[in-house]
Amino acid sequence: MASNNRSRILLESVTLFNHAGVATVSTNHICESLSISPGNLYFHFKNKEAIVRELFTQMCEETYALWKAELKEETRPPMAFIDRSLEIFWKYRFFHREMYHLRRQDPQLSSDWHRHLAKTRHFMKAAYAGWAKGGWMMRIEDVRALRVLSDLVLLTASSFFQFYESTEKPATGRPLRLGKEYLGRVMLPHFTPKYREEVLASIDE
Amino acid sequence: MASNNRSRILLESVTLFNHAGVATVSTNHICESLSISPGNLYFHFKNKEAIVRELFTQMCEETYALWKAELKEETRPPMAFIDRSLEIFWKYRFFHREMYHLRRQDPQLSSDWHRHLAKTRHFMKAAYAGWAKGGWMMRIEDVRALRVLSDLVLLTASSFFQFYESTEKPATGRPLRLGKEYLGRVMLPHFTPKYREEVLASIDE
Repeated sequence: MASNNRSRILLESVTLFNHAGVATVSTNHICESLSISPGNLYFHFKNKEAIVRELFTQMCEETYALWKAELKEETRPPMAFIDRSLEIFWKYRFFHREMYHLRRQDPQLSSDWHRHLAKTRHFMKAAYAGWAKGGWMMRIEDVRALRVLSDLVLLTASSFFQFYESTEKPATGRPLRLGKEYLGRVMLPHFTPKYREEVLASIDE
Repeated sequence: MASNNRSRILLESVTLFNHAGVATVSTNHICESLSISPGNLYFHFKNKEAIVRELFTQMCEETYALWKAELKEETRPPMAFIDRSLEIFWKYRFFHREMYHLRRQDPQLSSDWHRHLAKTRHFMKAAYAGWAKGGWMMRIEDVRALRVLSDLVLLTASSFFQFYESTEKPATGRPLRLGKEYLGRVMLPHFTPKYREEVLASIDE
């Protein structure tokens, strides 16, 4: 029951943070929303920061699980991976929207974030090699060009939600669909001609 | 003297907002930093929100002045324009970093922002036509492809600073230099071959 409450607190926090922003949501709001006592929440988490950090760990774990599957699988086209990654970016979108601010307030989170960024770059290099081997992407010999491309993918995935998610209306899946189109276009020049046609057709759907 | 103080307040606010984030900086901080009385500040601005809105207007005006020059000038390559635009993005980087949050708190700013976004898209279409005419860019017939490209340029310019500006160390010009490289790479597939060589050479410098 106790661990069940722990999961409920994490789940409700993501929803509230996504909806209203971390700064606006207090531990009291989370308790009210779940109809639990503050004591119950503090049994599991010291404060809001601890919840945010735990959610960051959770997001990283989901991401790494996806990567692991991607590096094993050799017959999966890059856009299928992009789709699944975007689901995670969308699920935890408050992080990317507010990361600068959160990093400022919590040096621990900031160093976790830097570590995650370094891992992301490392993974992208490995994944790209796999996609090139599988005939989806053209090889990029220039290390710096590959790094910039991987940063652009990351940048677009992590920042366009805050751009296109309306602050006025309830969240919809529209930014998620847009994201797929945008990432497809960022990567387009690096697809092999055959796969490029396929992606373009799916974008125009 | 009064209007001089008004400008000083605006200038100091940008510096403080960029350095510490809008949420952290109070009107008292601004007064202390300028050695003026709160009454002096309130003579010019009702509250912090009013300062933020005025700075947004100021940023838009600087941007529109740059656009006007760009649409007049027919012999200027796109990267020169990108360079100048990035200076403005950098100067007001707190806006892009915190825009989602600021829009949430201030519906007026949110609608100003939407209007600015619509203008940006309109301008990019016109500017692109000029660059194609001048032989720098290849024509893009597909309206949607042009729109996505222009959104990607905007997204990259407005979001990579929060990604690459360290929250731990004092601001440097490094993210600004990186931004030029990233935007060059976003636009690269759409440059004419001759100009592409030129841009690549400047990126590798």
